[in-house]
Amino acid sequence: MNEFDLIACIHDRAGKGDGVVVGIGDDAAVLQPGQGMHLVATVDNLIAGRHFDQTATAAEIGHLALAVNLSDLAAMGARPRWCLLTLTLPEPDAAWLDGFLDGFLSLAEAQACSLVGGNMARGPLDIAVTALGEVPAGHYAGRSGARLGDRLLVTGTLGDAGHAWRHGAKPGDPLRARLLKPVPRVAAGAAMAPGAHAMIDVSDGLLADLGHLLGGKLGAEIDCTALPASEELRARVPDDIERWQLQLAGGGDYELLAAWPATVPLPRTGDTPLTEIGRIVATPGVRCLGAERKPLRIDESGWDHFREDDPGGNQGDPE
Amino acid sequence: MNEFDLIACIHDRAGKGDGVVVGIGDDAAVLQPGQGMHLVATVDNLIAGRHFDQTATAAEIGHLALAVNLSDLAAMGARPRWCLLTLTLPEPDAAWLDGFLDGFLSLAEAQACSLVGGNMARGPLDIAVTALGEVPAGHYAGRSGARLGDRLLVTGTLGDAGHAWRHGAKPGDPLRARLLKPVPRVAAGAAMAPGAHAMIDVSDGLLADLGHLLGGKLGAEIDCTALPASEELRARVPDDIERWQLQLAGGGDYELLAAWPATVPLPRTGDTPLTEIGRIVATPGVRCLGAERKPLRIDESGWDHFREDDPGGNQGDPE
Repeated sequence: MNEFDLIACIHDRAGKGDGVVVGIGDDAAVLQPGQGMHLVATVDNLIAGRHFDQTATAAEIGHLALAVNLSDLAAMGARPRWCLLTLTLPEPDAAWLDGFLDGFLSLAEAQACSLVGGNMARGPLDIAVTALGEVPAGHYAGRSGARLGDRLLVTGTLGDAGHAWRHGAKPGDPLRARLLKPVPRVAAGAAMAPGAHAMIDVSDGLLADLGHLLGGKLGAEIDCTALPASEELRARVPDDIERWQLQLAGGGDYELLAAWPATVPLPRTGDTPLTEIGRIVATPGVRCLGAERKPLRIDESGWDHFREDDPGGNQGDPE
Repeated sequence: MNEFDLIACIHDRAGKGDGVVVGIGDDAAVLQPGQGMHLVATVDNLIAGRHFDQTATAAEIGHLALAVNLSDLAAMGARPRWCLLTLTLPEPDAAWLDGFLDGFLSLAEAQACSLVGGNMARGPLDIAVTALGEVPAGHYAGRSGARLGDRLLVTGTLGDAGHAWRHGAKPGDPLRARLLKPVPRVAAGAAMAPGAHAMIDVSDGLLADLGHLLGGKLGAEIDCTALPASEELRARVPDDIERWQLQLAGGGDYELLAAWPATVPLPRTGDTPLTEIGRIVATPGVRCLGAERKPLRIDESGWDHFREDDPGGNQGDPE
């Protein structure tokens, strides 16, 4: 089994998708963009021991590697079209690759995102995915653009992934899937982007990502009593303050956070729950309010790969 | 200096290019594809000790990381437009990053390829680049399509990079630049692609890459006396057989190899030399012919990251 056998393996399983003129196996992929669309491009890599631990299966890693990138597309309002996979493996391992492709390609198929190319090399395990999507020209949502008075909307629930990471959720634990098999909010993102003033995906933790939306000039008030939590999380962390802390600072949720105009009706996001959790205010900084609007002190630290007080593999928050 | 400081550093230096609606600093880049164009996408990564040795400067690594990808675009006939950079660094190092960007961004600017996004993580040094280009719809050249009787054309000269790699060319050695600062043949690729039956870039070595063009069904005759060599290489390796071996099996040239219809005049490639080195024949396999068309035996082994007889860092051929 050598590099070319492994690539043949990927080639055979990837199939050929919509808009793919030349797929895997050439010097580069040739693709047919849609008319009137903007191209949206992102790349993200996963590193063993940093973004997932030793208990993660190959299929979970494959799913996660693609999911974090599709979540970035979703945050712009784009629909996935194509992806490229860069795999650096310590040694050729057909069984591992097969499992990885199970996870990767299931999600790719579900999201109509064709695997069209990539690269394979030998070295410490490293997985990078480039995702390419499209959004109708002008209908994307960037990080900047939030305005005074905007409502803050978040999809789904927050905190499950952070809980699973901190407590090392074992296989079978329902919260583990929220950490390792997040479902990118593609349909909701496409529905929200045209009307949102700004949008971002919550990967580093709500407070950290909200900080990117505020850009240092605006502030926000968060009504912690409104933070959406799963039944499972409420059962495991019944204490409000403790749960809010997890929901505000834990990462890996891959939900969408949007700044939505105060006077515009909320978008229709189908099956995806949408919750108003606060609003944009003039005073910079984030105020977290508990029961009866009492201010809370929350540790805001998010995930920073090069944080100086944590020089080793940061196990605190996944990206 | 943390992850965000380093990203700010890249953001400040990258500028904003043509067709970039949203560049570095958002969840994903938003790009404006050209009308009537196909999108061409490729990704390639460099690994320390495999693709470059410890003597390589940060600027050389930066140039090489982008160059190998632009060479893949050139091999399809595409012109570069945008790129994304994934950097995994053992520790934040502003001076190294600055040097890296010197090399990377000089080439990006020269080739009108805007850096629009990427990702930064901490771990063993790994550099992956995604390059996005465009080619007029239908005018790309793939690897398959070579036909019986086609002439084999190659740009520039072959063997300099292989010589530099095998002999560990020191800084100041003119052949070292051919190894670490290859110039992707973008203009020549765009000129050749519409007329070529098939095209590939010579990264793994001429015989290995020619094998991809032949696809197991056709064969080729190479006239070794026609192989283009630099004056410098002729001076260092005056023995014909030894030099031909290097030119046929050494990698890292990043020249273009095309199968060109026998009856069509050669394309105009401006300042880029173009040499006819052989032709496509019916009998599978490659025959290398020396003086007076005498058959030669050549070691055909190219670069394979997972070659079993070379489990460690393969120092024989760069990709």
